[in-house]
Amino acid sequence: MDIIDKLKWRYATKKFDITKKLSTKQLDVLKEAFNLTATSYGLQTIKLVVIENRDLKASLVEHTFNQNQVLEASHLLVICIQEHVLENDVNDFFKNIVDIRNTSEEILEPYRLNLIKTLGDMTVKEQQQWSKNQAYIALGNLMTVCAVEDIDACPMEGFDPKAYDDILKLHEKGLRSVLLLPVGYRAEDDMFADFEKVRMKVEETVIEL
Amino acid sequence: MDIIDKLKWRYATKKFDITKKLSTKQLDVLKEAFNLTATSYGLQTIKLVVIENRDLKASLVEHTFNQNQVLEASHLLVICIQEHVLENDVNDFFKNIVDIRNTSEEILEPYRLNLIKTLGDMTVKEQQQWSKNQAYIALGNLMTVCAVEDIDACPMEGFDPKAYDDILKLHEKGLRSVLLLPVGYRAEDDMFADFEKVRMKVEETVIEL
Repeated sequence: MDIIDKLKWRYATKKFDITKKLSTKQLDVLKEAFNLTATSYGLQTIKLVVIENRDLKASLVEHTFNQNQVLEASHLLVICIQEHVLENDVNDFFKNIVDIRNTSEEILEPYRLNLIKTLGDMTVKEQQQWSKNQAYIALGNLMTVCAVEDIDACPMEGFDPKAYDDILKLHEKGLRSVLLLPVGYRAEDDMFADFEKVRMKVEETVIEL
Repeated sequence: MDIIDKLKWRYATKKFDITKKLSTKQLDVLKEAFNLTATSYGLQTIKLVVIENRDLKASLVEHTFNQNQVLEASHLLVICIQEHVLENDVNDFFKNIVDIRNTSEEILEPYRLNLIKTLGDMTVKEQQQWSKNQAYIALGNLMTVCAVEDIDACPMEGFDPKAYDDILKLHEKGLRSVLLLPVGYRAEDDMFADFEKVRMKVEETVIEL
């Protein structure tokens, strides 16, 4: 596998083939890849909502500037952030480290207190921006994983997060929607599929020192 | 290749093997992968600085909370954003579309004007935040590409961007440093290499609707 060929193959799919569905195995890869995304401190304050239900997807189209990808894709992935990051989240994280790595709580204690202080010093807005950054890391990871797995995808920022949060009842879960990634298979007649990729020359975007 | 195995293999490398260097071919893959990162509108307002020079890397350690990865890694990648996005950037982008895709300027004109308006309506701070989002997408892409290519890496937000901008003379280039990714090979005695990965269960980070 040539990773560069894979990255050249991917494009922001505008029209999906509504007859083709991702397999359970493919979805499991995407879910696990999301869970393996590197996050700041490893705290994982982002969550992934996976939507297959057609009616639910249909209800979201009007809140996505009427872009049909969210309906026509096999599945709609919604990357979310936690509204708040609480001391309990940090405690659960450190409990997880103790369980998985068998590290002593004593060794971890200063790191736990430091992280609680770091997060406590942030305003809610700063916490959410910090979590949003991780959502973009996850998006970058998932797009590349999709390309490797021959899954088509369309990264989307253009939607009404408040409407999504209401329809998906995200507030009840303490979440906010941040980014969309419909995934599936490109339609044969998506004219964008054959467009030459537009990129600057590598010499224009990379500086060697 | 199993992408999940690759993602499990990767970890934030704390100690690099200073005797091992990435090949020109490996670096070319990373540079091209960066250039292929999906960006908002495709405008590519992010740039990658690649540092091999040992003295230059050494001068950055004290501005990175004395973390030696930036010195010991084969190469230090610095993901940067443009300080400003100007009308000329948009015009160059659309010239590139005309050149590469042979699309008529007439068809593109409303998109060009719309993008100039969208960017013009943003404050400088909003523009920079918007570009920073793309920097995180690039980080997510590059980390996964490194994993696929068996290259070790350490994503880092903890550094003094102003000191980096001064030392690397980024202001002269209209750039600001945002994220670091030292890349190379893990040292045999990096104790973090054998630590079990700490992640929540997939059922805790993924919600199916």
